Amino acid sequence: MNGPIYNRVALIGLGLIASSMYWAIKRAGVVGEVTGYARSQATRDTARRIGLCDRVCDSAAAAVEGADLVVLCVPVGVMGQVAAEIAPALKPGATVSDVGSVKRAVITAVEPQLPDDVHFVPAHPLAGTEHSGPESGFAELFDNRWCLVVPVNGTAETPIAQLQSFWELLGANVEIMDPDHHDLVLAVTSHTPHLIAYTMVGVADDLRRVTDSEVIKYSAAGFRDFTRIAASDPTMWRDVFLSNKDATLEILGRFTEELFALQRAIRTGDGEHLHEYFTRTRAIRRGIIEAGQDTDAPDFGRAKAKE
Amino acid sequence: MNGPIYNRVALIGLGLIASSMYWAIKRAGVVGEVTGYARSQATRDTARRIGLCDRVCDSAAAAVEGADLVVLCVPVGVMGQVAAEIAPALKPGATVSDVGSVKRAVITAVEPQLPDDVHFVPAHPLAGTEHSGPESGFAELFDNRWCLVVPVNGTAETPIAQLQSFWELLGANVEIMDPDHHDLVLAVTSHTPHLIAYTMVGVADDLRRVTDSEVIKYSAAGFRDFTRIAASDPTMWRDVFLSNKDATLEILGRFTEELFALQRAIRTGDGEHLHEYFTRTRAIRRGIIEAGQDTDAPDFGRAKAKE
Ligand SMILES: NC(=O)c1ccc[n+]([C@@H]2O[C@H](COP(=O)([O-])OP(=O)(O)OC[C@H]3O[C@@H](n4cnc5c(N)ncnc54)[C@H](OP(=O)(O)O)[C@@H]3O)[C@@H](O)[C@H]2O)c1
Ligand SMILES: NC(=O)c1ccc[n+]([C@@H]2O[C@H](COP(=O)([O-])OP(=O)(O)OC[C@H]3O[C@@H](n4cnc5c(N)ncnc54)[C@H](OP(=O)(O)O)[C@@H]3O)[C@@H](O)[C@H]2O)c1
Repeated sequence: MNGPIYNRVALIGLGLIASSMYWAIKRAGVVGEVTGYARSQATRDTARRIGLCDRVCDSAAAAVEGADLVVLCVPVGVMGQVAAEIAPALKPGATVSDVGSVKRAVITAVEPQLPDDVHFVPAHPLAGTEHSGPESGFAELFDNRWCLVVPVNGTAETPIAQLQSFWELLGANVEIMDPDHHDLVLAVTSHTPHLIAYTMVGVADDLRRVTDSEVIKYSAAGFRDFTRIAASDPTMWRDVFLSNKDATLEILGRFTEELFALQRAIRTGDGEHLHEYFTRTRAIRRGIIEAGQDTDAPDFGRAKAKE
Repeated sequence: MNGPIYNRVALIGLGLIASSMYWAIKRAGVVGEVTGYARSQATRDTARRIGLCDRVCDSAAAAVEGADLVVLCVPVGVMGQVAAEIAPALKPGATVSDVGSVKRAVITAVEPQLPDDVHFVPAHPLAGTEHSGPESGFAELFDNRWCLVVPVNGTAETPIAQLQSFWELLGANVEIMDPDHHDLVLAVTSHTPHLIAYTMVGVADDLRRVTDSEVIKYSAAGFRDFTRIAASDPTMWRDVFLSNKDATLEILGRFTEELFALQRAIRTGDGEHLHEYFTRTRAIRRGIIEAGQDTDAPDFGRAKAKE
């Protein structure tokens, strides 16, 4: 390639995703300067202390000034507000993107705020951990994970292609997807599972009054994984559920139906139904391992990712 | 200690738990001879090929002959039947134990089958993976995990203490627990989470007809963990739910209640309720990490366990 895709990139919000993006950008050496901004003084101080971003600015407007790419890395619920804040300072011809876990609501909130002379190209990297904040990022987070680019109607091809190349340089595989379809697929693969994990851990929390700390002490496989999922950032997830309401409620409805059927099989002692159901779900796991989205290794291949 | 606790140990059933026990026994070097038996010729052949057990027998009765400790490592639903099979061949004074994930139902099924001159000491090691079969075991499975010993009324102290020492030599930490209490705690920490994971993966499987293979392709954190849980052995889990029916149904009832409350908060846009709930569940995760039942490391510390 000839020269960098973007000379200057601005990251608004400096949490898990933004900090991972910064370290991945540095690893790839593909951007001239990366500026950053976060809402709180505390996060900006931390960022300066650990060298997160080439320059940390004290306002979102200052951070986006002269930037060729601006990436909104804030919770889904404040994307619109942040877009309004930066709009007057955006360089004409710049690309504005985001990393929000929901796409339709972000598009609805952000698009009307932006001037006509910038390109808006929403995206969503399918990568994360249960940790958050400026110190939780690492360069390898996006390696071999998907990044879904979700363009809106009428966007020129070049900014889309540039954003795609950018994410590929950060280690991700990119696919283009329609916003509503994105929200439905993610409701199945991520949003509803998170709600369920939060619920189960909440039930256990209630029961601690009965079983004391035994629920924690004897926490077995299954529940332990749920607690990890349910340790994710409350603000991020509140915003995800509120802004992907329809798809989440639809999948939850189906989930409840199936759960009632299994509950009934337990109550009536219908072992055949249970065995059949549990056999069917095994095949999905095989599919995921074959698709390279997870590993069969006892450590999930995570040791390798961190090397 | 002076001499081995048991000169001869018999493992009935040669799957994940039994094979891990065998390798852990060898690592500790604490038993004279370990015999083994599994139902199918195929499993017995595999065991002989990979050197699982010092001697693989062609009947359960032959395997338990002269054994000082017999451990039933078969699915919960066949424990009673296997106990009846071995009863006539048991050595007077021997200890019979099991590793079943449910305790009350196993006690009810096994106790009446055994002769009066053996000691029955049920147990449950809280350790497992989603894999099964004779080739899935490894010596480190029980290291630093709990093994709950669940004695029945009237059992002498020596056989209980011996089984406790045995499991400690295999790497586990042992606690004594009441059977019904065991079944309730496990319904919360393991059985209900497994049912929920199976259900969610089943929902996704239905939706593949809608979203094609995208559910697999874009499988994100959360769902990916569920598929691992839901890849566990169907027979084992069918038996667990059928034999821990009451506690599972009770916890499921509570789960459904809480899920409905969260569903309602999403529908009505009650962000405060969601945020509060998601904040509360974080504390449980901290408790588990502090209790040493999981690690904060991205690889769950599993790399270390396998070293
Ligand atoms: N975590 C995941 O697994 C994951 C995966 C894919 C996509 N995403 C998406 O990525 C985005 C960021 O998530 P994250 O995990 O990186 O979150 P995070 O670690 O909690 O960081 C969020 C950042 O946004 C900043 N922020 C919040 N409100 C703001 C405002 N009004 N103006 C400016 N900055 C503000 C926060 O600043 P302070 O530190 O000053 O509060 C913080 O730096 C979310 O939209 C999420 O849906 C997350
Ligand atoms: N997996 C876990 O995470 C876990 C954790 C703690 C406790 N447990 C408990 O441990 C026990 C064994 O589980 P596992 O995971 O080791 O199972 P597994 O890998 O599926 O192995 C089960 C073994 O039992 C044998 N078997 C089945 N029916 C039999 C019968 N009627 N007579 C003789 N042998 C029979 C099987 O023989 P074939 O190979 O010939 O079919 C196989 O060798 C279960 O009670 C389970 O609840 C499991």
